Amino acid sequence: MLRLGPLAAAGRLLPAGPRFGPPRPSGGRVSLSRSRPPGPVGDRGLLARQVRAAAGSAGGGRSPALKTPKGTRDHPPAHVALRDRLLAAVVTCFKRHGAAAIDTPVLELRETLMGKYGEDTKLIYELQDQGGELLALRYDLTVPFARYLAMNKITNMKRYHVAKVYRRDNPATTRGRYREFYQCDFDIAGQFDPMIPDAECLKIVHEILSDLQLGDFIIKVNDRRILNGVFAVCGIPESKFITMCSTVDKLDKIPWEEVRSEMVGEKGLSPEAADHIGEYVQLHGGLDLIEQLLQDPKLSQNKLAKEGLGDMKLLFEYLTLFGITGKISFDLSLARGLDYYTGVIFEAVLLQTENDHVEEPVSVGSVAGGGRYDGLVGMFDPKGRKVPCVGVSIGIERIFSILEQRVKAEMLYKKDPKLLKQLQYCEDTGIPLAAIIGEQELTDGVVKLRDVATREEVDIPREKLVDEIRRRLEP
Amino acid sequence: MLRLGPLAAAGRLLPAGPRFGPPRPSGGRVSLSRSRPPGPVGDRGLLARQVRAAAGSAGGGRSPALKTPKGTRDHPPAHVALRDRLLAAVVTCFKRHGAAAIDTPVLELRETLMGKYGEDTKLIYELQDQGGELLALRYDLTVPFARYLAMNKITNMKRYHVAKVYRRDNPATTRGRYREFYQCDFDIAGQFDPMIPDAECLKIVHEILSDLQLGDFIIKVNDRRILNGVFAVCGIPESKFITMCSTVDKLDKIPWEEVRSEMVGEKGLSPEAADHIGEYVQLHGGLDLIEQLLQDPKLSQNKLAKEGLGDMKLLFEYLTLFGITGKISFDLSLARGLDYYTGVIFEAVLLQTENDHVEEPVSVGSVAGGGRYDGLVGMFDPKGRKVPCVGVSIGIERIFSILEQRVKAEMLYKKDPKLLKQLQYCEDTGIPLAAIIGEQELTDGVVKLRDVATREEVDIPREKLVDEIRRRLEP
Repeated sequence: MLRLGPLAAAGRLLPAGPRFGPPRPSGGRVSLSRSRPPGPVGDRGLLARQVRAAAGSAGGGRSPALKTPKGTRDHPPAHVALRDRLLAAVVTCFKRHGAAAIDTPVLELRETLMGKYGEDTKLIYELQDQGGELLALRYDLTVPFARYLAMNKITNMKRYHVAKVYRRDNPATTRGRYREFYQCDFDIAGQFDPMIPDAECLKIVHEILSDLQLGDFIIKVNDRRILNGVFAVCGIPESKFITMCSTVDKLDKIPWEEVRSEMVGEKGLSPEAADHIGEYVQLHGGLDLIEQLLQDPKLSQNKLAKEGLGDMKLLFEYLTLFGITGKISFDLSLARGLDYYTGVIFEAVLLQTENDHVEEPVSVGSVAGGGRYDGLVGMFDPKGRKVPCVGVSIGIERIFSILEQRVKAEMLYKKDPKLLKQLQYCEDTGIPLAAIIGEQELTDGVVKLRDVATREEVDIPREKLVDEIRRRLEP
Repeated sequence: MLRLGPLAAAGRLLPAGPRFGPPRPSGGRVSLSRSRPPGPVGDRGLLARQVRAAAGSAGGGRSPALKTPKGTRDHPPAHVALRDRLLAAVVTCFKRHGAAAIDTPVLELRETLMGKYGEDTKLIYELQDQGGELLALRYDLTVPFARYLAMNKITNMKRYHVAKVYRRDNPATTRGRYREFYQCDFDIAGQFDPMIPDAECLKIVHEILSDLQLGDFIIKVNDRRILNGVFAVCGIPESKFITMCSTVDKLDKIPWEEVRSEMVGEKGLSPEAADHIGEYVQLHGGLDLIEQLLQDPKLSQNKLAKEGLGDMKLLFEYLTLFGITGKISFDLSLARGLDYYTGVIFEAVLLQTENDHVEEPVSVGSVAGGGRYDGLVGMFDPKGRKVPCVGVSIGIERIFSILEQRVKAEMLYKKDPKLLKQLQYCEDTGIPLAAIIGEQELTDGVVKLRDVATREEVDIPREKLVDEIRRRLEP
């Protein structure tokens, strides 16, 4: 499903949120103790040298370039082991909710993927025409699922699918995005009483994020019908609804002023219409906000918005029964980029609250998202028969990178590891902090913490070491 | 690894071996009882109609072609569940032998794959040049592993990798081959005492095939050095060794006479040289044959052959210690097609012995294969440094299709399943046999077996039903 790619695929790079400051070489690893996963990421410099060496080696064209394709990476054993544990936790939850696994090919016909992803269609990897069908790599697991349902005339199915998807992200914006990454999708297809499958998807996100103990999180919820109603009462023509969604969707990354100027500048809205939209899309709350909007003189007159708000109210009633409204925010700025959503949409973000310096919880990125797409299966069915669907995608790679950040330390594998060599290694590879424990430090119950760049050393009591490292790694 | 594709990827189709005769519609399913996995394979006719309907529907170009790319398929839940159990069994064995998992991208640089697969290079899927690197889908897991070792300067590693590979098989020969299929690879990289890692690979194949209870099997073993020695003493120039291997490799599919005429006709050998080769490559046996060849006046004078035979003897000593020589056959006809093998090669085939009519056990296809490739990593290393490697690939899809054949029965999902409708369904979908159990049959302790084509019905005592079905499904 969905457009998790930009964040969900962030992988090993540090979150780009304000708490983390500019990226450090080697992903800001701390040389503390224990081992680190072997692999190419920490060796980029070395690798670059190898590639250059290969290109310029005496053997001429003998050695191929020694790298993985741009935006992809190998996964060493420690990486695979952690990922498998994460995947197992997610799959256990999916199974507990009664889903069965399916698998579909990595390759799809190009025409299967076309017209489903809006502006992101340009990110699809296409295969060379080798004298057969025109093929492409799948961009998500949702469109293949809809194709599967239509092809097998299945009108009722709860399925999960854990597999890699492929997105040829614009090189200018690839920072932190991988072009090959896992998605873990859970979807419910079929006609059911309103909002019950939608509520189950949110319950699943809540269970998984709680189980994985990733820290505080919030699940933003909105409805495409409410957004479309807002656009309508602000005087936007229906033909611009989808492109307006992709503009509004940027509100989690750029401030309202910039979104507004895109609306007025690129999208040709009047300043008044933009301001009017702004009044709505900056709202967020709970049942009270739903009630308030149901009383809104304009919005309550719009059929779509009224439907969406009615369903949102019903959804919140189920979520109250599930006891999870504490983590749910009805947020009118949530739009999501893909074309195929028709109703409820949602997105889970982790919050960073450990830091006392920061007043408000700060989002460190989307880790799950999804929504209702009632028209997608009908696009594949020869007779256009629709199968209502709702689903969620867990951004396992993003979660992986967050878990990996928690212990990111290494030691030098030398039988006689001279201190100077170790410090030299830290400087060479961009490790910011070195923790030194010699005999004196052991006696004193302290750890000598060295700032690799300034070479300044301070003794830190052991019990304060973790806090001190956290403090120093903040911007 | 390896060239398991042609057979390992046979998937749901019936084995093409002589016992199974011409393929039946719907894969020769028997309507006996229980459910079958839902999915597109049994619905090819329906699907074709859907696609035609879509193409000719009133909506014009609205509905995309409703299919997966040629040579690929979806996997419904029952399929995935069985496959996951198989994969878990294989992975358990790999882990027991101390291997760690890695993962590499599905995409590789084209230059990484070029020059590794001989004639099969034309089967590689290439991606469109979309203004970046020239990419291709991986053809196996062995070349990416060698690239991984060289890139990370790893000289010592025991790894496993379970993932899909992609082969654009020639459309004329795709019958029973899938273009996307799983491989389960176990490889040992590093310099060790001779034949110990090689013996472990064979032990692993033996363990997995025994654990899965697939019936009788044999593991054929040979050595590229012995083959090359044979070619040399038969007067073949060294430049023709690799192409001769791919000709000899056909001996498991076509008789010697045809292989001989390919040697003389296409490859330009003299009839005498071909006959000379024929004397060697039709030999198979155990330690006795190794001893005999070590005494062979010509072969014993060839350095490569002598080395290979010496190592083969050592290998058999280890296999004797492991207690598995009963399933091992030193077989000079085994050549394997890929360029990169340098020493021991092997291939496991299942034998069909249940059938009393057949005198000799008949091979029903390769389910595992591998060998030593000491030069591959060096092709990637900028300085050409070699890392000796040996590995094995388990053809999980082939094993899957064999396990699936064991119970291939379905029933009609109707609350009021009229007999006539059920029989009509059998005729429509090409199911050859129907088992009917009514009140009378229950009383009599029999099952009425109906030949769907002739409409002839016979009562069969329950205890003889399985044998009778087996007998009727034989050619």
